[in-house]
Amino acid sequence: VTAPPARPVVVLDAMGGDDAPHSVVAGAVLAAADGIQVVLVGAHDPVTAALEAAGGPPLPVVDAAESIGMGEEAAVAVRAKRDASIRVAVRLVAEHLERQEPVALVSAGSTGATLAAVLLDLGRVGGVRRPVIGAVLPPVVAGHGVVLVDAGASPDVQPEAIVASARMGVAYAQVRGVDAPRVGLLNVGEEPGKGNALARAAHEALAGTAGFVGNVEPGVVLGGGVDVVVTDGFTGNVFLKTVEAVAARAGEAGSERRPGAAVLLGAAADVLVAHGAAGPEEIRAALRTAETVARGGLARQITARLGGPDRDRVRS
Amino acid sequence: VTAPPARPVVVLDAMGGDDAPHSVVAGAVLAAADGIQVVLVGAHDPVTAALEAAGGPPLPVVDAAESIGMGEEAAVAVRAKRDASIRVAVRLVAEHLERQEPVALVSAGSTGATLAAVLLDLGRVGGVRRPVIGAVLPPVVAGHGVVLVDAGASPDVQPEAIVASARMGVAYAQVRGVDAPRVGLLNVGEEPGKGNALARAAHEALAGTAGFVGNVEPGVVLGGGVDVVVTDGFTGNVFLKTVEAVAARAGEAGSERRPGAAVLLGAAADVLVAHGAAGPEEIRAALRTAETVARGGLARQITARLGGPDRDRVRS
Repeated sequence: VTAPPARPVVVLDAMGGDDAPHSVVAGAVLAAADGIQVVLVGAHDPVTAALEAAGGPPLPVVDAAESIGMGEEAAVAVRAKRDASIRVAVRLVAEHLERQEPVALVSAGSTGATLAAVLLDLGRVGGVRRPVIGAVLPPVVAGHGVVLVDAGASPDVQPEAIVASARMGVAYAQVRGVDAPRVGLLNVGEEPGKGNALARAAHEALAGTAGFVGNVEPGVVLGGGVDVVVTDGFTGNVFLKTVEAVAARAGEAGSERRPGAAVLLGAAADVLVAHGAAGPEEIRAALRTAETVARGGLARQITARLGGPDRDRVRS
Repeated sequence: VTAPPARPVVVLDAMGGDDAPHSVVAGAVLAAADGIQVVLVGAHDPVTAALEAAGGPPLPVVDAAESIGMGEEAAVAVRAKRDASIRVAVRLVAEHLERQEPVALVSAGSTGATLAAVLLDLGRVGGVRRPVIGAVLPPVVAGHGVVLVDAGASPDVQPEAIVASARMGVAYAQVRGVDAPRVGLLNVGEEPGKGNALARAAHEALAGTAGFVGNVEPGVVLGGGVDVVVTDGFTGNVFLKTVEAVAARAGEAGSERRPGAAVLLGAAADVLVAHGAAGPEEIRAALRTAETVARGGLARQITARLGGPDRDRVRS
């Protein structure tokens, strides 16, 4: 008889976010009440004070001497500050990973800072040149949420990166409960010759990829015609921001339209980025999503499908 | 004392559109009742029959022996069929232009076919490598309509083409009544270094262009923060289709969201493309927009600002 699998630990960068540590810690308190095992990483005194202000239980706090401001140039600041909360948090995740304990990371700080810290202290899945962002589109979209990859991490990519995005997007959709995800390439028409040079080359490269159904126009994506939509990080970010902005202007619900957090696909562990303006309820949702992703073993699945046993880490 | 300027002639390709000639001719009849001077170009018998069915006045019909089907490969079909309605219509426009008579063209046929016919029989403004599409965003956008260039004609462009789009977009916004149009570059963030390689280079190239205010995110565009938004034709078409699709799903008005027609900026004359599915009311709106654009002398203004006196024509 084996013991039931341990509940994942969700490491939270308490210093990342517009209103950190207050909203972030308040969200952690809500998630802890749901039974999620949260570990806070940040400057001891303000984090402890925020915990007391939120009236929560004494959650574990791992001290970090520094933090990254939203105004700093992410890549530079992260390299310079080895003890920044995001780097301490990423190393804590790496330690759990080494011990094969289920773990995930959530940060509402700058995505660039999180990405840089991941590359320095955790590494990528072998075969992935650069992690991409998998985001679930807001519920103006029909049915179950459609997974968008890349929602904004890598603006300039080769067609092969879009194939990797498709395979990682399929893994993410499966963790979300879709058995055989259908994958579409975001484009301006359905015919194979449509689009710009990158889209035409990506369409060719995607042939034979599991679940690939061809080009899809925005209306088809929004109608739920696919489970995963892939594109480069520039087009994907414009698409996501346009969907959010039109939905907001058309009077769709506010906080409802952000499904917790997006996943950094291709990182060696399950890493989620929440919006900088996330309030306590959105942080709670992000922590819940992180636990679900860690339970599903998303990064492990992606490693098994795309990478070798040795993960690829940038040396600092 | 000079005579009042002649009312522009609006040449309409009666054979272009999903339901041509019926919806197209019915729209012409509505516009003629508004006082617009429409000339129909198409196969004599079906166009005359459609005119009778629409119960309209006997509008002038210029016979064209051939037409281009929506399923045909546009560039090939247009080259092969010298007497296709779109080519006869474009040559009629060129004749008016030679005589310096105010004129515009409307087609609800394939944009690719219209573009090909323009390049063969009419030509571009000197200094414009390839015409682009200027479209007015649907009214989910705040205030006056924002002009989007390029809405889909040229998916792969150099930064200089985006500068030309900005200058042509400004001319279009001015013809629409905006005195000093503000121009933004569609991007994923406001800082100059944001975006993909093309967006970063376009931002640099746009420095010093009249009205340029910098990068704009989709939410700023939709909030009416600029009068003109420029981008490449791939991103622009994804953006436009996403705005339309979300607005439709969020229950915005149907036909109201298409503002008549889009303008082929950089053509030597005022050429407008309407949606293939346009019904009579949308054709009427397109003809009205065409008359406004021709009254404002948009192509003439663009030629004065961007081109030399000799326009550039592809030889057939």
